[in-house]
This record gives sequence, C-alpha cells and structure tokens, in this order.
Amino acid sequence: MSRLDVFAIDGIGEIRPGDDLASIIAAAATAGSDTALADGDVVVVTQKIVSKAENQLVEIDPTDPLNHKPLVERESVRILRRRGDLIISETKHGFVCANAGIDLSNVEEGWAALLPEDSDRSARRIRDGLRGKAGVEVAVIVSDTFGRTWRRGVTDVAIGSAGIAAVLDLRGTPDALGREMQVTEVAVVDEIACAAELVMGKSNGVPVAVVRGIEPSWFRDGSVRDEIVRHPNDDLFR
Amino acid sequence: MSRLDVFAIDGIGEIRPGDDLASIIAAAATAGSDTALADGDVVVVTQKIVSKAENQLVEIDPTDPLNHKPLVERESVRILRRRGDLIISETKHGFVCANAGIDLSNVEEGWAALLPEDSDRSARRIRDGLRGKAGVEVAVIVSDTFGRTWRRGVTDVAIGSAGIAAVLDLRGTPDALGREMQVTEVAVVDEIACAAELVMGKSNGVPVAVVRGIEPSWFRDGSVRDEIVRHPNDDLFR
Repeated sequence: MSRLDVFAIDGIGEIRPGDDLASIIAAAATAGSDTALADGDVVVVTQKIVSKAENQLVEIDPTDPLNHKPLVERESVRILRRRGDLIISETKHGFVCANAGIDLSNVEEGWAALLPEDSDRSARRIRDGLRGKAGVEVAVIVSDTFGRTWRRGVTDVAIGSAGIAAVLDLRGTPDALGREMQVTEVAVVDEIACAAELVMGKSNGVPVAVVRGIEPSWFRDGSVRDEIVRHPNDDLFR
Repeated sequence: MSRLDVFAIDGIGEIRPGDDLASIIAAAATAGSDTALADGDVVVVTQKIVSKAENQLVEIDPTDPLNHKPLVERESVRILRRRGDLIISETKHGFVCANAGIDLSNVEEGWAALLPEDSDRSARRIRDGLRGKAGVEVAVIVSDTFGRTWRRGVTDVAIGSAGIAAVLDLRGTPDALGREMQVTEVAVVDEIACAAELVMGKSNGVPVAVVRGIEPSWFRDGSVRDEIVRHPNDDLFR
C-alpha cells in the first residue's frame, strides 16, 4: 500500500544572509525526536528562507504602502494584469504570479524578499549539502505560495527542485482498464509542495518539511525550469 | 510537531451506477490491515467513482475521436479558449478546466464520465454515509485533476468538500515576526487533494485515500462552491 509520512522540521530559527541552509536543516532534523533525515526523503524548503540565506533582500521604505511596486516592475519581464495594488506578471524566471513573488511577510520591516535567482540551483545546493552534512540522498524542493487564475485561495507550488522528476510522465501508461491514459503529465513537485505546506502552516513560521515515502522511481535529475515553466508560446492565457 | 499520515484505501473495486460509496469505502478501509477510518480523517474520493456511482455516464461513439466534443459544449456555460482538440471552458458548476471535466480514462470504452451535478453535495452524502456505516466523524473531499494556466503538468484539486474549511482564512494572523500577514487565504482542500493524489497515482486506479493528522480547528462546515469557485467578476482572466 502506498503511504506517506509528512512532517515539519522544528527549530530552524531565523535565517540570515550567508547561512548554510543544509547544515541548519540537517542539525534541526537530527535534533528532533523522530525527524532525522533518511535516504529517499523529499525535503521541502520555503522560498523565504532560501531568499534570506542567499541575501535576496532589498531595502524598501517602510512608510510607503506601495513601497515594493517599483521592485515588482523591475523583477518582471511582462505585466499581464493590474488591479488596484495587485500586479500579475511574468518574472524573469518565467513564473507568472502576483507581485513578482516579492514578499513582505516574515521579513523584517523595511525589507522585501525577492525570489532566489535560480531556485533549481538553490535546491541542488541544499541537496548536495545534505548529502555532505547528513549523509543522505534526498530530493529537495523550494516552495512558494501562488494564487490561481480561477480558484480562490493560494496553494504552494515548487519554484525549484533537485533529485526528483518535476513532472511525472504517464503517457502510454495503461489506465486501470488497460487503455492508454489521457491525463498524462502530473506535476508531482507541486503536489509534494502542497502536502508539505499542510504541516508548515502560513503563520507558525516552520520553513522546512519532509515528505517521506515517495515512490523510488520518481527520483531522477529534474528541474522546475525545464519541466514546469510553460513557454509563452504554449500558453493560452498570456 | 505537525505530522500527517497519507495512505491509499485498497480494494475499492469497480464502481457501478447506484453503488453506495460510503459503504464500499468503509468496508475497504476496514478490510485493510491498518487503514480503518478514524475521527478527524479527511477522506479524498476521486471524481471518477463519484460520477460512476451517481450515473453521470453518457454514451459516446467510440469510433469518433472527437466524440466527446458536443458533450463538452453542452456542459459549458462559457468557452474561454480553443486550441486543436482542447477546449478550456467554464462549466455549469463554475469550474474553469479543460474539456468541461469530461473524462474518458478509467471509463469503459464508448462512455464518458461527466462531473457530478453537485460535488459538495456528493461529499456531504459520503460524509453522512461514513458516519452511519463506520461511526466516524470525517471530512470528505471529491478530487479531480486539472491543468494550470502557466505551469505544465496537472495536479489534483477539490471539486467538492464537506466537513472542512475549503479555504483557511489567516487574515489577521500574525506572522512569525508578529506582523499581520499578507498571504491570507489558503485553499487547504486543494492542498489535501494534492497530498492524496501522491498515493493514488494516476494509473493504478486507487480512487480513495485518507489524510490523517489535519489540524482539528480546520473541521467545520464549508464547501468548494462557496469558498473556492471564483466569481467571474473577481477574475482577471475570463
């Protein structure tokens, strides 16, 4: 039977520019009573602490409520929609999201956190670091919180990944009745990011979670940029 | 520490019109060695078996590759985009998805499965049935597989729910640094549907999974229609 264990890693603490996330995650996981990392785990790390560790922080005027708008425009390659304070744009990384992924919550007042320069690379670094520090072969996902076009509420998505298929290609897999399936490509890193978010919560500041029990055949080289980011030419809504 | 246990319910078998899903799910869960349902579980049921049990099946011409197109138009209230065989439309339920949610995989040849008439009602019925058959207070989510506007790959979403907040409102909750959060409304039923999908798989035909360990305060009356479906007037992409 297929079974997953999803748990938060407590005790990460406040992350500062230059911090070595792999060391901090490995130490916090080992310190927990039953959260030590194991081969085959998927470690999900929120964008916020990756951006902080990589010093993707920009000073903004805390007295101006629209203080991050020039940043949003600078980080965007294409504005899709504006409504009031909200800008939906395509970032230089190819993500389409609100306010170019720039975030002011869980960041000190007067500062904004930009997205990591290359979140797949960030995931690879953390993965390599965990191999060195904790001696484990894991996959890593960098997650962020995005809205959806036609559905209320936000969910987490993967903005970077390493060591796991970002999209699982089921083309040609027979369905339960033996015929070829129509629904073919499952964005498993996004689903894993969602599972992790359920134990992180938004307000309690737990920035790392583990999803244990993922099918071993899903572990391979892969990246969000190559597999998930949709090219504008393939896109009906840009 | 926050922790979830996510597992598939094996042994559901083929579902036929008129089948009582609650009885079938309760029996299969109890028959499993360690899958008996418990209070506080969230039971995720795929749209496919709900549609079959509710006889939302329509005969189509198996020799015509475009046989389900007239159905897609009939089930839609608004066509947003067409490209080749693909139609993105708003269904009469308010969902925006490909081909009005009509599906031919895991359905017998010559038949198509429409979405349930009212998936929130379907979820409530299963929930009430499980209270009666298994004596448990659970939440129920009816899940389906949707594409996303700007991201490749599909993920599961909730098209109906009962007994749980569909969207968790974190407005006014202080973030970890004590300031009011910006990201406020989390579509937890969609995140739970994603977690469940990871153990169901697409091709192995397991149509029911359980997510155990969800925060007790999330259990309340709620529905996808009232909380998740975005009104066209609030929508920047319709």
